[in-house]
Amino acid sequence: MTRTELLPTETATAASDATRVAVSTVIFSLRRRPGEDRPVVVLPLVRRTRDPFEGSWALPGGWLDIAESLDAAASRTLAETTGLAPSFLEQLYAFGAVDRSPTRVVSIVYWALVREDVSFTATQENVAWFEVADLPQLAFDHNEIVDYALWRLRNKVGYSRIAQGLLADEFTLAQLREVYESILGRRLDPANFRRQVETSGNLIPTDRFRTGSHRPARLYRYDRDVELAERGPLSVAQ
Amino acid sequence: MTRTELLPTETATAASDATRVAVSTVIFSLRRRPGEDRPVVVLPLVRRTRDPFEGSWALPGGWLDIAESLDAAASRTLAETTGLAPSFLEQLYAFGAVDRSPTRVVSIVYWALVREDVSFTATQENVAWFEVADLPQLAFDHNEIVDYALWRLRNKVGYSRIAQGLLADEFTLAQLREVYESILGRRLDPANFRRQVETSGNLIPTDRFRTGSHRPARLYRYDRDVELAERGPLSVAQ
Repeated sequence: MTRTELLPTETATAASDATRVAVSTVIFSLRRRPGEDRPVVVLPLVRRTRDPFEGSWALPGGWLDIAESLDAAASRTLAETTGLAPSFLEQLYAFGAVDRSPTRVVSIVYWALVREDVSFTATQENVAWFEVADLPQLAFDHNEIVDYALWRLRNKVGYSRIAQGLLADEFTLAQLREVYESILGRRLDPANFRRQVETSGNLIPTDRFRTGSHRPARLYRYDRDVELAERGPLSVAQ
Repeated sequence: MTRTELLPTETATAASDATRVAVSTVIFSLRRRPGEDRPVVVLPLVRRTRDPFEGSWALPGGWLDIAESLDAAASRTLAETTGLAPSFLEQLYAFGAVDRSPTRVVSIVYWALVREDVSFTATQENVAWFEVADLPQLAFDHNEIVDYALWRLRNKVGYSRIAQGLLADEFTLAQLREVYESILGRRLDPANFRRQVETSGNLIPTDRFRTGSHRPARLYRYDRDVELAERGPLSVAQ
């Protein structure tokens, strides 16, 4: 056997031995079903057009490019697959089980929140919005990833200003409570909720009111001096 | 130029184009300096014996093997470099800045806590314990990684049972307060602290007391039904 005969095999072996890095993003939004008063949590999925899992729905994502940071790869692959550009994009977790893909792939997963109006305008081929409570069997370990992202969302809404990512700049306390109720999947007492957010010090009342079929409700905004998602030293470094 | 002449270059290009995945771990422990009553937060570092950054101190870690999960790689590389096997090992963050290493390396960073007595017995060549408040310039972006891990530790001690990872199974309230003070870097009012932990419902008083130079102090233990570090669905899945 000559050296030239050996080389293609060597190259093939080297390639199949390599661990590749992918980036995926779980984007949560809210969607109001006709006739229901409380919105539900939804997320966009992309139908795969190639193997593995051709035809299955998967989280938006793609391969990490050698010359881009993880954050940049998350933004880029999200824009390419869904056309979405959320203002809040945070690293969630790295998933690296050996058997999560036919080849070895470590997926750095991000999560994001987009407002209802933004999510409605983003339409792209092979992209559809699904209710998190009613997902099909997804490609790879993506069901498990969505479960983990939902758990993080529910946890985080309790101790951070994360709900802001799902709201317009100004909102009523009823709208804010609705966001909490949708995320937590249960009703909250209006009076208790009002007391809690008013004492939290994160909300600033405006001089404006929302008018409509009900009595006028004051509009609030979040204190912009408070970070949306606390990332500590990473807010500065990256 | 013939095809055989081209091949080595192609192979070399393919190799240098690859992103490699490494795993590193930040392990915090406490150490009492002679003459000082409050312990300080310390972590073990490994002196690098090869380029890049030969001779510099770095976090314990190594390459991800193609056939092991991220969690398994963290445990293995930690044992190989420091001999430590912490009971608590949690994924912290994936660091992937393009210029963090001469070649492209995405590092999945874990963090762990070990008790004072465990950290003292672990001695290995080229391993030394450093105070986090007095670190040298580390290899790669490891100073930045330690800063982030410290921030997470300080945050997490506020809303989880994480301090347990630094304590013996049974401890006095003064010992628990000391752990909090070391992590947060400030004194806590003993009466307030006692009231807060007693109302948290996480601590179970035992029938035993610690005796010594002071008056006997009751020993407590954490409620083992409460998870040390809440990981949600991941506790089951991985």
